[in-house]
Amino acid sequence: MSRTYDLDRAHVFHSWSAQAELSPMVIAGASGSEVWDEDGTRYLDFSSQLVFTNIGHQHPKVVAAIQEQAATLCTIGPPLANAARSEAARLIAERAPDGMERVFFTNGGADANEHAIRMARLHTGRHKVLSTYRSYHGGTQTAINVTGDPRRWASDTASTGTVHFFGPFLYRSEFHATTEAEECERALQHLDHVIRNEGPATIAAIILETIPGTAGIMVPPPGYLAGVRQLCDEHGIMLIADEVMSGFGRTGAWFAIDHFDVVPDLITFAKGVNSGYVPLGGVIISEAIVETFAHRAYPGGLTYSGHPLAAAAAVATITTMAEEGIVENAARLGTDVFGPGLAEIADRHACVGEVRGLGAFWAIELVADPETREPLAPYGGSSPAMNDIIAACKKAGMLPFANFNRIHVVPPCIISDDEARRGLAIIDEALAIGDAVVA
Amino acid sequence: MSRTYDLDRAHVFHSWSAQAELSPMVIAGASGSEVWDEDGTRYLDFSSQLVFTNIGHQHPKVVAAIQEQAATLCTIGPPLANAARSEAARLIAERAPDGMERVFFTNGGADANEHAIRMARLHTGRHKVLSTYRSYHGGTQTAINVTGDPRRWASDTASTGTVHFFGPFLYRSEFHATTEAEECERALQHLDHVIRNEGPATIAAIILETIPGTAGIMVPPPGYLAGVRQLCDEHGIMLIADEVMSGFGRTGAWFAIDHFDVVPDLITFAKGVNSGYVPLGGVIISEAIVETFAHRAYPGGLTYSGHPLAAAAAVATITTMAEEGIVENAARLGTDVFGPGLAEIADRHACVGEVRGLGAFWAIELVADPETREPLAPYGGSSPAMNDIIAACKKAGMLPFANFNRIHVVPPCIISDDEARRGLAIIDEALAIGDAVVA
Ligand SMILES: Cc1ncc(COP(=O)(O)O)c(C=O)c1O
Ligand SMILES: Cc1ncc(COP(=O)(O)O)c(C=O)c1O
Repeated sequence: MSRTYDLDRAHVFHSWSAQAELSPMVIAGASGSEVWDEDGTRYLDFSSQLVFTNIGHQHPKVVAAIQEQAATLCTIGPPLANAARSEAARLIAERAPDGMERVFFTNGGADANEHAIRMARLHTGRHKVLSTYRSYHGGTQTAINVTGDPRRWASDTASTGTVHFFGPFLYRSEFHATTEAEECERALQHLDHVIRNEGPATIAAIILETIPGTAGIMVPPPGYLAGVRQLCDEHGIMLIADEVMSGFGRTGAWFAIDHFDVVPDLITFAKGVNSGYVPLGGVIISEAIVETFAHRAYPGGLTYSGHPLAAAAAVATITTMAEEGIVENAARLGTDVFGPGLAEIADRHACVGEVRGLGAFWAIELVADPETREPLAPYGGSSPAMNDIIAACKKAGMLPFANFNRIHVVPPCIISDDEARRGLAIIDEALAIGDAVVA
Repeated sequence: MSRTYDLDRAHVFHSWSAQAELSPMVIAGASGSEVWDEDGTRYLDFSSQLVFTNIGHQHPKVVAAIQEQAATLCTIGPPLANAARSEAARLIAERAPDGMERVFFTNGGADANEHAIRMARLHTGRHKVLSTYRSYHGGTQTAINVTGDPRRWASDTASTGTVHFFGPFLYRSEFHATTEAEECERALQHLDHVIRNEGPATIAAIILETIPGTAGIMVPPPGYLAGVRQLCDEHGIMLIADEVMSGFGRTGAWFAIDHFDVVPDLITFAKGVNSGYVPLGGVIISEAIVETFAHRAYPGGLTYSGHPLAAAAAVATITTMAEEGIVENAARLGTDVFGPGLAEIADRHACVGEVRGLGAFWAIELVADPETREPLAPYGGSSPAMNDIIAACKKAGMLPFANFNRIHVVPPCIISDDEARRGLAIIDEALAIGDAVVA
């Protein structure tokens, strides 16, 4: 094994893992939708890593911008101003809904959500936050506490004030609904009941992934988010749209919220904002909340807020995505390639319960039994069949994104149609493993 | 005003501030111990920004390393391995105490502390964490909750399980002590009492800044940290040394803990590890805690854990600091320049209650009354005199680091003796403002 591998095993502690049971692939380089290992074996990146390299790997314009900013000014503290930070904030605000003009920068998604929730709590003077079970909002204390997925369980002992509810998800409806419209109506009714039972005047915010990502890419039915907005307005509750995964092109729009004609009070972002080339996240803040902190100090911060190198990467990423039509390309990929391609895969495989998504943001829901919809791996767990499907994808030269019983199709938004089809063909082949379980 | 300034005021939300009351200085470039604004006016950076540019601004070797890594591989997800991450982990572990061989990387100091506390809680199966009132540990929920300073107050409503106690600080002794030895003994006794009253078996960790930074650079008396270590051992409590500000050369050693011959269970770091050129933090983990997560998944993570660009900056920073003797230079500055220079300043000014520190890490404690030791600004607040002293420093071409009634002398560890003396002379002059208050 290589020196890099050996040092990794000796000195690197990996997230979400049992340390003695790892053998990480060593990545030596990357370009566009491909990465390669130390032997030069290439893999199609159908995961965008953790769904963040929206612009693809090593885009030359972003690399050049980082190199130039590094030569000028790598870093400066948050109390000062600098050109890269100002311009990044302008470009982000320009793309956000009207009335959302200010950006508080963080290092990633978790701290963006921490600060958004702090702002909502201080703005409303209330404490409780509502979030869905099918969600991931990050690993720091408040972020993991509002998270719904099982990653929360081990760390859910040190916060108060989060209440979880069920969002709409027709394929596994909590509400025994049989149509999208029914699911939407019942999910809103459920949320209304939770609000009324928790006490509307105790609730600072509802935090939602606009389109839940890791939890399964469940595009909300028409009217759901508008209904949530209406409940928030009725009760003076802040609506926080977590766009950490869904923002910056992923869904074929700058923000996923653009598909729904709804304006949240706070938007959190990270990942796609600069494709993760330099750690960056943040909160886009509506004017009413900015106003709360006009003459009262906002009591929060971090050393690297508005980091120039990260901001310069965001400026180059956003500018390049606009110039090269990358957001439009994601939309087109959804309509022309992934939509039809995944529909065919669903038709061909007994183990595919449902495919859903838009843009470059799709989930394949795998089942052991199409009748009962029993998942191919249990909630929060894995299964031999899922492990074999993942291994088959890797063996065929593709890095998949998998979660429990799902494979997500989330490549860079710049992927070529040929590469996209190659990735789908690899999945198509691997799913024979799932079909064997059904049979 | 410039475009950068205008865009900042329109679109950037600043940390710890009332947004309508800001007029941030625009920084256009930096080098070594200097930064300059858009008009080319140069300032001596006696703050290292927020005490993080230990290697100075724009060190050419670190800039080159960032540019090279950007050309090779900006980013890759945490489950994979890569050369920069492996090498950064090796270099950090090499400098940590024996038996601390593994590094979990984060984006900054707050999330490093979040993860260290999570590790301690899961390793011990206990929940409570003890920390000192005179401390800052970061802005995310668990980090702000263990923080002691007033930045905690507004956000201290969503966590449970933190207990604050008083650490040693002879100049403002909580224990009515008159000598260092007495302060040490009584502070340990106090901690022992807090532990016994909270229930030793309920306490997961004690988190301490090895040398409290923003809270006032109080070097603990000989024997204090060894005494804390002994209490921890007696009760199975994990000792977390927060070296976010004190690590990587600041005190004239790689880690401040090196001065005390004590081995903690967890060390958190950020800032100096790569001088903040790219956001990076982390936790160094003792073998016993790594062992807990050998076959049980560690339930925590973040998208940019072990970010290659940040890791490459750390490799270059650490290597360069070693090659150029920058840690030794910080030690020498403390002994030869800041120690004697600040002692003279203390002699000359009635408003100087105490100067204390080591390496490139010093505090000047300012008082309105040398007898009563009444601070020149109240705890958690400011005063006209302090504001005027800060303004006088800036006017004379120097950026100071100020907190309540203190000016900290925390320049880059590469500062030249001439620059260091120039900075001290500016402070010397400005302190006439404080003397006028005393008189
Ligand atoms: C929707 C969502 N929110 C927040 C986060 C947390 O972001 P980070 O890992 O940068 O802290 C993630 C990460 O995957 C996410 O998908
Ligand atoms: C001792 C200490 N710990 C933790 C932190 C938090 O680090 P960050 O701002 O990178 O989250 C700081 C920041 O100043 C610090 O000084």
